[in-house]
Amino acid sequence: MNKELLLENLRTVPDFPIPGILFFDVTTLFKNAACLRELEDALYDIYKDKGITKVVGIESRGFVMGALLAARLEAGFVPARKPGKLPAETIQESFAKEYGTDTIEIHKDAIAENDVVLIHDDLLATGGTAKAAYNLVKKFGPKEVFVNFILEITNLHGREIFDEGVEVSALLEVEE
Amino acid sequence: MNKELLLENLRTVPDFPIPGILFFDVTTLFKNAACLRELEDALYDIYKDKGITKVVGIESRGFVMGALLAARLEAGFVPARKPGKLPAETIQESFAKEYGTDTIEIHKDAIAENDVVLIHDDLLATGGTAKAAYNLVKKFGPKEVFVNFILEITNLHGREIFDEGVEVSALLEVEE
Repeated sequence: MNKELLLENLRTVPDFPIPGILFFDVTTLFKNAACLRELEDALYDIYKDKGITKVVGIESRGFVMGALLAARLEAGFVPARKPGKLPAETIQESFAKEYGTDTIEIHKDAIAENDVVLIHDDLLATGGTAKAAYNLVKKFGPKEVFVNFILEITNLHGREIFDEGVEVSALLEVEE
Repeated sequence: MNKELLLENLRTVPDFPIPGILFFDVTTLFKNAACLRELEDALYDIYKDKGITKVVGIESRGFVMGALLAARLEAGFVPARKPGKLPAETIQESFAKEYGTDTIEIHKDAIAENDVVLIHDDLLATGGTAKAAYNLVKKFGPKEVFVNFILEITNLHGREIFDEGVEVSALLEVEE
């Protein structure tokens, strides 16, 4: 993987969405054709032999590489969305946020027991949303579940929120 | 294109998001690996010789095939998002909705004058959002702009909202 190309093209935006937060902006990777290709190849390399049958992308930045990975792995793509966006019957998972709770959902018929599932999002920060997606996918009873990110903010230790034995990967490590 | 495969796997949900609306649910195409491949191939076939350098996906269902098309065409992917989601400087476009107005935006540095742009969304209904995306992309002064959908609800005549001479395509025609 050409890590330098990706880190060079990653944009950081101070004080977004609120003062004191350094935002890692992957849109500058997506808009660059060479970086998009590099991300696709690097992610595909990690998962090509895992027998993945469904890739779950977390709304909405996770849809981008999630869809690309699904196609490349010859798997299906499944969106995990905020409540009220998916039109058919769903299974939900709620989780605590700094203030209040949040919920994500997946269509009830989107994952089956014989699926091997890869959950993808752009960024692992504190891990709350991704862990909720993991708990949600586990409710479907699939054979195996992997979790993946483009970026991991290592000093937030989001990886520790996952159970031991869960295979979590990130292409790039950054610090806030 | 295997139109039958796609139409067979497309789900319709009555009365979503509000009573009286028949919702065309493309997630049942995305979750099916054969349909996802079919969509990718069919869209690629339309645009492979157009010299596309950027694919703009409209938040958020447009991110799925938008990202796939960008990678396949060796172009960059650019998200068009609701206000407040993109962290850096943006250009905006507002448009009238049935009640009130809505706004979408694109990062100011995401499209250049030498780009050939393909705008993608899952569904052409009345065309309000896609036309706003078209007007927004034109503000960047690119060489050429194409507009594409998976589905077109033909009896809503959304296609007529575009200027003559704008190349608009949809893979599948449906009626509400």
